[in-house]
Order: sequence, then C-alpha cells, then structure tokens
Amino acid sequence: MRPTPFLRNAIGRGGVASAALKERVRRPGYLKKLAQPEDLAPLFKNDDYIGWSGFTGVGYPKAVPTAIADHVEANNLQADPATKKKFNLFVGASVGPEVEDRWAKMDMIARRYPHQVGREIAKGINEGRIEFADKHLSMFPQDLTYGYYSLKKNHGDPRKPLDWAIVEATAITEDGHIVPGASVGATPEIVQSAEKIIIEVNTLVPSLEGLHDINHSFVPPNRQPYVVTHPQDRIGRTAIPIDPDRVVAIVESKHPDNTGQNAPENEESRAIAGHLIDFLSSEVASGRLPPSLLPLQSGIGNVANSIIGGLADGPFEQVQVWTEVLQDTFIQFFDSGKLAFATATSIKFSPEGFEHFYKNWDRYKDRLLLRSQQVANSPELIRRLGVIAMNTPLEVDIYAHANSTNALGSRMLNGLGGSADFLRNAKISIMHTPSVRPTKKDPTGISCIVPFASHIDQTEHDLDIIVTEQGLADLRGLSPRERAPLIIEKCAHPDYKDSLKEYYDRALFECLRSGSGHEPHMLRNAFKFHINLMEKGTMKIDKWD
Amino acid sequence: MRPTPFLRNAIGRGGVASAALKERVRRPGYLKKLAQPEDLAPLFKNDDYIGWSGFTGVGYPKAVPTAIADHVEANNLQADPATKKKFNLFVGASVGPEVEDRWAKMDMIARRYPHQVGREIAKGINEGRIEFADKHLSMFPQDLTYGYYSLKKNHGDPRKPLDWAIVEATAITEDGHIVPGASVGATPEIVQSAEKIIIEVNTLVPSLEGLHDINHSFVPPNRQPYVVTHPQDRIGRTAIPIDPDRVVAIVESKHPDNTGQNAPENEESRAIAGHLIDFLSSEVASGRLPPSLLPLQSGIGNVANSIIGGLADGPFEQVQVWTEVLQDTFIQFFDSGKLAFATATSIKFSPEGFEHFYKNWDRYKDRLLLRSQQVANSPELIRRLGVIAMNTPLEVDIYAHANSTNALGSRMLNGLGGSADFLRNAKISIMHTPSVRPTKKDPTGISCIVPFASHIDQTEHDLDIIVTEQGLADLRGLSPRERAPLIIEKCAHPDYKDSLKEYYDRALFECLRSGSGHEPHMLRNAFKFHINLMEKGTMKIDKWD
Repeated sequence: MRPTPFLRNAIGRGGVASAALKERVRRPGYLKKLAQPEDLAPLFKNDDYIGWSGFTGVGYPKAVPTAIADHVEANNLQADPATKKKFNLFVGASVGPEVEDRWAKMDMIARRYPHQVGREIAKGINEGRIEFADKHLSMFPQDLTYGYYSLKKNHGDPRKPLDWAIVEATAITEDGHIVPGASVGATPEIVQSAEKIIIEVNTLVPSLEGLHDINHSFVPPNRQPYVVTHPQDRIGRTAIPIDPDRVVAIVESKHPDNTGQNAPENEESRAIAGHLIDFLSSEVASGRLPPSLLPLQSGIGNVANSIIGGLADGPFEQVQVWTEVLQDTFIQFFDSGKLAFATATSIKFSPEGFEHFYKNWDRYKDRLLLRSQQVANSPELIRRLGVIAMNTPLEVDIYAHANSTNALGSRMLNGLGGSADFLRNAKISIMHTPSVRPTKKDPTGISCIVPFASHIDQTEHDLDIIVTEQGLADLRGLSPRERAPLIIEKCAHPDYKDSLKEYYDRALFECLRSGSGHEPHMLRNAFKFHINLMEKGTMKIDKWD
Repeated sequence: MRPTPFLRNAIGRGGVASAALKERVRRPGYLKKLAQPEDLAPLFKNDDYIGWSGFTGVGYPKAVPTAIADHVEANNLQADPATKKKFNLFVGASVGPEVEDRWAKMDMIARRYPHQVGREIAKGINEGRIEFADKHLSMFPQDLTYGYYSLKKNHGDPRKPLDWAIVEATAITEDGHIVPGASVGATPEIVQSAEKIIIEVNTLVPSLEGLHDINHSFVPPNRQPYVVTHPQDRIGRTAIPIDPDRVVAIVESKHPDNTGQNAPENEESRAIAGHLIDFLSSEVASGRLPPSLLPLQSGIGNVANSIIGGLADGPFEQVQVWTEVLQDTFIQFFDSGKLAFATATSIKFSPEGFEHFYKNWDRYKDRLLLRSQQVANSPELIRRLGVIAMNTPLEVDIYAHANSTNALGSRMLNGLGGSADFLRNAKISIMHTPSVRPTKKDPTGISCIVPFASHIDQTEHDLDIIVTEQGLADLRGLSPRERAPLIIEKCAHPDYKDSLKEYYDRALFECLRSGSGHEPHMLRNAFKFHINLMEKGTMKIDKWD
C-alpha cells in the first residue's frame, strides 16, 4: 500500500521510537511508520468502515480512537451535517467505555456489529441513532470476511470490507505479525479484511507472546477441520499473520485496559452456584459425567463468579475450561490446583487481577491459551468437547425459551454474545438467573420466569437446565407440558408461582379443549406480565383475562 | 444375551428361511433367530422404551410394529388400564403412517422423540395423550446415548436407554452388521442404545450395500473430528456395526416404504424458486459464491421441489448437495448432469421415483452417500462446508424470527426436524414461504409475515434471506430497524402490507419515544393477527389498538 500524502505527513511527524517500543517491535521497517495518534485522527472520513481489536473490554486500541474523538470534539465536527463523522464500527465484542461509549455519546457511530455492552452505546441503539445487530460471536468474523457487513459499502476495495483496522499489540515479530494483548476476538479476520492497518503497540502491558493460538482462518469451499480434541491442543501460531505492506502506521500506547471490578458475589449467586454444583455432582455419581467433568464454559457476572469460586472449593479435580472469557475467580480456581487447563478468547480480569496475573506469569502461562472467537466459540469444538455451558438470561419462559438481549421485547440491554454458540452445542446447556429482579416500585417487581419470553434468543430446543436461587429444573427429555410445571415449581419466585401456575393451567385447559395443547398458551395474555410492568411498575397482575 | 423362554418360543416358531432371505443374510447364525412378527408382538410390555430405524418415512420397520398393533387390537388390550400398552418411541425422524399413525390412533404411544409428521400423531400430541418434544435432529442421537431420554426409566439396564431396537436392513454382512435401506437416521445410535435388537430384513427392496457411510459415534471427552471437507468424502464403513449377541430375532419383511407422492409444484413455488435462483446468480456474479455454488441443503415440500427442479434447468454446473433428505426432483437434477454429488441421511422418493432409482442404480450409486443424521446435520460439517440452507417456516416475523412448528403458538403441526441445524450454521440461511395461506373463510386469511412469531424456533440471529412469491429480502448485515421495512416491502402479501407497516411505524414511534427502539414492538398488539385469526377466521384486523 502506497501511503497517501496525508498518511506520509502523519508518519513523518511520528518522532523517535522509545526504547520500550524498540524492544517490542522486532521488525525495524515498522518503526519507520511511527506516528502520533493526533496526526492520524483527521484521516478517518465520514462513513468509513473501521475494525478494532478487543473483546470484553480487553485488548482494544485506546490511543487512536481517543485521538479521533478528541479531533472531532476540538473541531466541533458533529455540529454541522457537512462535517459530521459517523463511522461503521466492527469489534469482536465489547471494548472499554472510555473509547466506545465516548464515540457513542458523541454520535460518532453509525453502525456497530456484532456485540455491545455499555450505557451510551445501548442508548444510541435504543434511540435509533446507531444501527446494531447481534450476531453469534463465532459467526461474526466469518461473515465479515464473506463481505456480509459491507453489502452497502460504496467506496474502497470491495474485496476489503474494512477501510481501517486499528489493533492493539503487545509485541510484533520479525515477520511483522501481531502478538495481541489479553484477547484475540475477531482480530485475525479484522486485519485480514482491512485495507489499512494501524497497530497500537502497548508498552504498558507486558508482551504476552506465547499465550495465543492463532490458526489460519479458511473460507468455504476450502475450510479445514479444527483438529482440537482437548482444550490444551494447539493448532496455530503465537502471532496474528498480516501483510506488512498494509500496515500504514505504528503508534505507541501506554493506556491500560479499562476493565473495572468483576461483579461481586451475593447470597443469591452463591445459592445458584450451590444448586449447580449439586447437580454436577449427581451427574458424576450417575456416570453421565466423568469425575473431572467436561470442559466448562461460564459467562460473565456474579453467578458465573460464584460458580467458579464454588468449583475452586468443590469436589472436582483436574477440571478443564473451554470458554469465551476468564474472570478473576479463575485465578482462585487455578491457584486451588483444581483447574488443569483453561482456554478462552479473552481474559477480563480486574486491574488487581491483571497485576497478580502478570506478576505470576510463569505459574499460569502453560495452563492457558487464548484463541480467536471463531475457534473459541465454534459449534464444531463446543459439541466435540461436550462443553458444559452456563449463561445468564434476562428472562426465561415456562417452556424454556430465553431472552438474552431485549428488555420488554424492544430495548437492547446487552448483546447476545456467544451465549447461543455455547447453549446450542453444549452437552449440558444451563441458564442461571435470579428468580426476580427489583423495580423502583417493587423489590420483586420483575419475575425472570414469565409465560412467554418477550424476545427469544435461545429456544426451548437448546436448554437442558434452568436454575434460580429457588432451585434447579432438569428439563432433559421432557415435553413442554412436563417442563412448564417443573420450571414454575423449582425456579419461580414464591411471589409469582401461583400466577404462573394459573396461566399454565388455564392455557392447558383451553388448548386441550381445542386440540392444540402441545405447548399451551393464552396468546391474549402471553405478555400480560410485561404490559403490567410497563404500566404499573411490577409484573404482579391482578388476574388473567 | 440369553433368550428368555418367551423369546425362545418365538424364535422356535420362526420357520424356514426363504431363499431371498438367505441371500441377504450373510451371517448364518442370525438365521437361527428367525421369528414371525406375530410371535414377537406379545413380548413388548407397557412402558417399554423402543427405538426404530427410519427417517422421513423411509427405512423403518413395518412387520413387527404392525404385528404389535394387530396383537393389541385383536386382544382389545387398550380397553382396560390393566392390559393397556403405551410405549416410549424413539425414531430419528418420521416414519410411515401405517405404523406410527396407527399406533398413535390406538393410543399406543406414551412418548415420542424427537420428530413427528402425521395426522394422528400430531392429534395425540395436541390432545395431551402423547408427550413429545422437538430436538435438533443432529442432537437427538447423542442425547439418546447420553441417557437424556431415559432419566425417568425405572427398569432395565441403565446403561442401555432402550429396551428394544427394531430396525430394517436390506442386507446383513458376515460380521452381522446392518446394511440399512434408503435412510440411516439415528439407527447407529439406536442399536448401540438397545438391550435387544430385532432386525427386519426387507427382501422387497434391493440390497443397498455401498450407499451408506457409517462412522463410529464417539462420546465426549473422546470425540474426534469428522474429517470431511467435501460432500463425497467417506469417513466410515458401509454397514452399521452391532453386537450380534444382542440380536434376539430376525424377521423377513416384504413391505415397501409408504412414501406417497412428493408435493406438486405450483405457480407460487416456481415464483419463489425463481427469486432464489436470481439471488444465487447475483451472489456468484459478485464473487461471494463460486460458480458451482456451495453445497445445498433443501427441505421437503413443493418449494424445495421447485428450487431443485429450477436448478436442473439452471445456470450452475457441478453443483454439490449436503442435505437431510432427497426428493424426486433430485433424480431430474442428477439426470440433468448439473448435480455432481449428493449426500443426505434419507432418500424420500415417491414409489415411481424409487422404481426408477433402483432400476438405474449404476447411474447413481457413485454420486450419492447416505450418512447418519448426527453427521448429515452436524453443525461442524454444515459450517465447514459453507452450506446454503433453504427451509420452510409456518410464519416469519418482521424481524426474521421464524416459527417452524406450532400453529398459533400452541398446536404442534410438524416437528422442527433439522431446520435449525442447517439454518444456524449455513453460510447463507434462507427461509422460503408463500406470503399467505388460506383459511376456510378467507383465501388470504393467514399472513405468513406477522408482527411477532407466535412460536420461535429460528431466531433473527440465524436468518439471512426471507423469500416469498412476492420477493426476496436480503437481511445480511441489517439491524432490526432496517430489516422490518424491507421484509414487509419485499415479502408481505399486498393484503397485509399496510397493516404490517402501520404496526412497525407505530411501534417505532412509541419505542423511540421511550428510548427502547432497538427492536420496536407494541407488546399489547404483538399477537393481534393471531388472536383475530382464532376469533374471526382471518388475520385481517380492523385496526391496531
């Protein structure tokens, strides 16, 4: 790629590489492309397609996106439609709020795929300013390379869906390949899809060379099997291969990942974890699981933390983990000696967690691998390995359809993430949720067990176990008419049990009478809980119609 | 397995093997187990767990299930709770109505997994007499071997979930292994899961030895990759391995598969096929698909027939097929010279189709393989191969959630089948449906495009293309707010366009106002089409509330 005059200018003002940077960048040619973020910022044009590295707020670029926002702000560009800049942003999952939420707040995001977590980004989506769609995280990178996100793009090279990739590295190899930070995500496919690549070399974070397993990403009809039969199997190399000619600039960055604290455990999350560990123990006792279980996937949040914490004190030895993200309690799990090996696409530790992790790097490095999200979340591997998957929904209905994303059917809360990749393909698919959540008016105003989920991301065909602090419902092999009474009995909060039971009984009566009783519903009442919540601030209804 | 006295009696009366049977059964020991179906019938006890071979009405056992029904009928067993027999029935997919529907009508089925098609079986399910649940067809066989369907079984060997397997063979090898008929389905896992195996050797159908690719079915943590990178790759042997000691009886059968005629094409199905072939052509022109496409999956029904018929006359050469079922039009596709290779788990030809196929066996046998449904429908292979998947829903909503199973949310129509296996993992996921269906009162009384699907089997995250006779909506890379107007514009019937548009516009207005406009809905009106249909026989509503 021949640098444009603007780019040449930016690179020309790059300055002298620091010693730290020189140590990290083992390909000297790249140092000639050193630039300052503020010089690169004006190069980004309205409607550009931009990919970032990063996953769950880790390993994302900080310097250049911040400089772009500073540039837009300083020049008041958003005030005038003629100068306004809105970008199409593609990142494997969520990134730090200081960049993404800032862009969203400044109305700099036209389109965002395939995941989001954050107050301002969700606000922009729900106010109609940002076009967003969830996609299974395993599928996003391949769909990007297929060109599915650039069908409407009317500029640039049609074979390169992205105008820019801005990616963080903790080192660069002699070949110019990228050693990522503590996440891989969609970075391999993002750099493969970009016309121009900017690398932010983070010299604050240590080089994580050796932590990653980066395999070649094939496209049909020439796609090959992932030859992984155990979580520790390596199928790739330790850096992301790129075409050095497409690297247009290198930037030094010293910003930490803005991860914040993990969600604290509470009595409820410990109760859920207790039910789950009892269940896993009984599966081992019955011979349906081996004594060391099967590879575990656990989501993000306090229940996930309690489960992993519980396993660190639990009865299972030599446990393996095949998951999307590792949180702080995994450190405890490692240190307990019960966790043999873990693989994920991202490590989302708190700042203290990271400090401990980097300080004790030697203790962890051979028991851990990070892979791309296309591999970590791949149906092929999740199914082959017989993963035990555990995730949190917003709500589950009495037949075990789950809503992972949209409150009251319409308001995007958090994106889908990889939940469906795991729940569809796991050997045991578990959803865990508190039975109720508070509203302003009513401490048990929202039942997480509802007659009909107001948005469905996971179907009844995909869930084996529903668990709340109230108890656990084992749905394997049950028909809808067997599931509903069991979910209500085991999982619903006492404040809602009678109401749910009455919904089911009346629906059953009406539907059997009309010869339509496979999955009994009263459609006229299906969303009555939700409508009551909108109108009265609680799901507690007076009566069924 | 030591035969019980009853079994010994049954076998003792088996009679002399016919010449045809001797030719098919190459393991002489089996011929000593020859029995008459009527002598086996009384051995089946109430609450027995029984697996059958068969898939889409092909390759299922006929003689023994018929004899069991005859026995129940002749002895009036169902009249008295003390003698009543209800069985738990497990078959890969649907089987011929003369056995399954008859059992259902006689109330002989307590539980049926994981699929059903048929008037009487659906009636029993919807009337609450039969417990049924859909499971993705790729997952059913593994869940069976995991013991998920026998958690409540309180008799027999807990390591053998099934008391009986009754399976059809067209030949038996020297090792005693089973050469199936024109389907494989879940038979490998069913015989693996059964305490006692009865083989019906069908001497009417020719031996299909060589048509099948039967691979070893591993269980985690020791599951291996399916090393298939093209539809024609073989990874197994030509017969289903079984433990000969568990074969308790052999029966000769001369019943044909009761397949009936394929659904006839019509103007509507041809219009849908036309839109689809145009779309595929434009994908080839844009370079997103190779000129010979990628392996195709197509469902059952007249639209599927029109598509395959259209491809036989179409612009694509050397096409490959990776699908669940082959219908009659595949013969035409083969004969056109445009279909290079096809693999499936079942061949559901009409009687004339089968006659032609068997007569011209040499012409087809090297261009065709049948695999188990765990492999044919495996996410691993569908995704690796980049399959183009095409299936029919009952209804699709304006955001592209689809209902494949339950009319009005509750009444089981046809089972889910493998639709979600394919649609979730395909490179291009297509659902095709007429835009309307008739009711008794109104020739366009049912809109197949609705505000909110009354049951959701396929989510918005899984569908790329919706097509009706009205047109095709390409949803790739679009947000929910972009999808809804496009689906309404391209796919809805003119009788419903305005109504759907008004639903969307009002929902958008209300949700944006309240900052919840990611996927705009009016929950109070979400099922108004359906409620109107129940009450007034048409989805044409007076107005939105």
